[in-house]
Amino acid sequence: MHTCAHAYHPPAPPLQVAQWFNTPAPLTWQSLRGKVVVLHAFQMLCPGCVEHGIPQARRVHEAFDTGQVQVVGLHSVFEHHAVQGTPEALQAFIHEYRLHFPIALDAPSDGANPIPCTMQALALQGTPSLIVLDRLGRVRLHHFGRLDDLRLGVLLGQLIDEAAPAPASPPADGCDANGCPAP
Amino acid sequence: MHTCAHAYHPPAPPLQVAQWFNTPAPLTWQSLRGKVVVLHAFQMLCPGCVEHGIPQARRVHEAFDTGQVQVVGLHSVFEHHAVQGTPEALQAFIHEYRLHFPIALDAPSDGANPIPCTMQALALQGTPSLIVLDRLGRVRLHHFGRLDDLRLGVLLGQLIDEAAPAPASPPADGCDANGCPAP
Amino acid sequence: MHTCAHAYHPPAPPLQVAQWFNTPAPLTWQSLRGKVVVLHAFQMLCPGCVEHGIPQARRVHEAFDTGQVQVVGLHSVFEHHAVQGTPEALQAFIHEYRLHFPIALDAPSDGANPIPCTMQALALQGTPSLIVLDRLGRVRLHHFGRLDDLRLGVLLGQLIDEAAPAPASPPADGCDANGCPAP
Amino acid sequence: MHTCAHAYHPPAPPLQVAQWFNTPAPLTWQSLRGKVVVLHAFQMLCPGCVEHGIPQARRVHEAFDTGQVQVVGLHSVFEHHAVQGTPEALQAFIHEYRLHFPIALDAPSDGANPIPCTMQALALQGTPSLIVLDRLGRVRLHHFGRLDDLRLGVLLGQLIDEAAPAPASPPADGCDANGCPAP
Repeated sequence: MHTCAHAYHPPAPPLQVAQWFNTPAPLTWQSLRGKVVVLHAFQMLCPGCVEHGIPQARRVHEAFDTGQVQVVGLHSVFEHHAVQGTPEALQAFIHEYRLHFPIALDAPSDGANPIPCTMQALALQGTPSLIVLDRLGRVRLHHFGRLDDLRLGVLLGQLIDEAAPAPASPPADGCDANGCPAP
Repeated sequence: MHTCAHAYHPPAPPLQVAQWFNTPAPLTWQSLRGKVVVLHAFQMLCPGCVEHGIPQARRVHEAFDTGQVQVVGLHSVFEHHAVQGTPEALQAFIHEYRLHFPIALDAPSDGANPIPCTMQALALQGTPSLIVLDRLGRVRLHHFGRLDDLRLGVLLGQLIDEAAPAPASPPADGCDANGCPAP
Repeated sequence: MHTCAHAYHPPAPPLQVAQWFNTPAPLTWQSLRGKVVVLHAFQMLCPGCVEHGIPQARRVHEAFDTGQVQVVGLHSVFEHHAVQGTPEALQAFIHEYRLHFPIALDAPSDGANPIPCTMQALALQGTPSLIVLDRLGRVRLHHFGRLDDLRLGVLLGQLIDEAAPAPASPPADGCDANGCPAP
Repeated sequence: MHTCAHAYHPPAPPLQVAQWFNTPAPLTWQSLRGKVVVLHAFQMLCPGCVEHGIPQARRVHEAFDTGQVQVVGLHSVFEHHAVQGTPEALQAFIHEYRLHFPIALDAPSDGANPIPCTMQALALQGTPSLIVLDRLGRVRLHHFGRLDDLRLGVLLGQLIDEAAPAPASPPADGCDANGCPAP
């Protein structure tokens, strides 16, 4: 007999960012530890992002104290790079759409790969995508396309009420809340 | 020194119902114990109810398993009684709007009071109103007017993750989770 | 060889009304001669009417001078008569939805026919329906279901620019703009 | 005594275009003579254009035969030139938003003026702007901001029913339908 393991919630891979906007200092998952994080991956020329994803990100940003829930935009350009891929293009978009939450320009890949680095690491299927991290920095939602406010709200309500992490102490034996990796 | 008490969440007063629709048997708070309950109080001739409250109730009903979240409609008629106050009127409305969750016709008051009984007991300010009960049958939201899906979702997410009640056993000393009443 | 006739635009059959609301005196097609008329047939318990038809009627009413375009509501109850068929029910609906244009309660049929009289005479397929009359009182649109504002606007623009009727003088030979009736 | 003049409807100034999209040959007002023309001036980073103006232009394009009503987009970039002012940027936008009507990139001004040439000539106040020309190529609407579909439809209905121009013959004395210019 054994006790069944909890669902596996992997930690989010590190953000790889060409440039940050709307934040005095670069953000890392580590610096956001203790908060629920809503990451909206978008492209400025993606109609579904402009119609649905960006307004939803704005509503979440306005509904919560940033000490509890932090919205982060991720501009993951995988097409029309020349047009929408520059920091200047993103800056103009942020200005015109009056966005006030932190936004990262996903780091372009080296070589011929059109998919930027964080988008690759997160295995995003496209834009808009929604990644939600719990207070421990673990991926709890990985969603491509539209998600309605009710379902997003339910998840946020659940994650807000989960315990914040205890003061960090390195696991003695390589195990953490997700289990113990094989050597 | 003392430990601060938790927020006081009173139990919901009993439903007083003239007639039930869409349910094989009358519902009581006791029969719903263990579920999160979303009670939508409305009037069929109230524009804000028809535009916002009823569609939201339908979305919640469709989003959740009824073992977890139970939507209940409450037709609390406090004006135009002759027109919208009868069971026949409510039945026609339910039919035309294709509503499938349980709906109660709030019991009319005796005498000259136009406010029906459950609306009085819940101290509703008008329609639409939204009352949310936790798994222990306690009132956790009491809202008059429109509430957006994101905020409603957050509350539902929090309440869904709260523990269901333990098997009932009468408190030995008159105390319950809300505290101890003075004798 | 011959010259093709113009499209046949029949005059609207007379309104048959149980009771008028929002008008000091009953309206007739004759009294509206010279104006473009937009007749919205609806039922207060018809979701498509409440969501689309009534708001559109309100927009048309607000967009035009009533000397040019007159909106008229027609409450054509063909189901749930006991609930929505009375003058009191219609009065309550008009009050709650704050409607300010003239509205007629379609005269109920004698006998067992559930379809009211004007609805029969106009051969309406259901609600919502939109009937548009030109300045000569002729039916120029007969539409069941939703019609978008752009297409409705185009028709109104065309009809507004058509000539108003000349001072009435009975045709010498029984002919009018629509042709000559057989004796 | 004299006959009062009709309203003055000036002919539209010539289009000045850096590049055309979605048309096999450049358009001119002359080539569109005989049609009603709806010119939507926009910028791809203007939220009101993306939310309202572009969807409206698409609806008009879909509602009419292009022999009667021709929609033309005009990308009049007066800010963020580096980002949205290039033909490549406009091409990407047209592709992502699946626009199928002819679109012109307004010719940039020489020198320091950020306002492009057609925007200057039409004295547009900003984006979105709506210019409607009658079948004679005269400006009949000059609107900055949002215009609802009902009002736009009314104007189009009126202009559609106006007579198309007679075969061109140069006025003998310099006069045209708008009057006679002083020598």
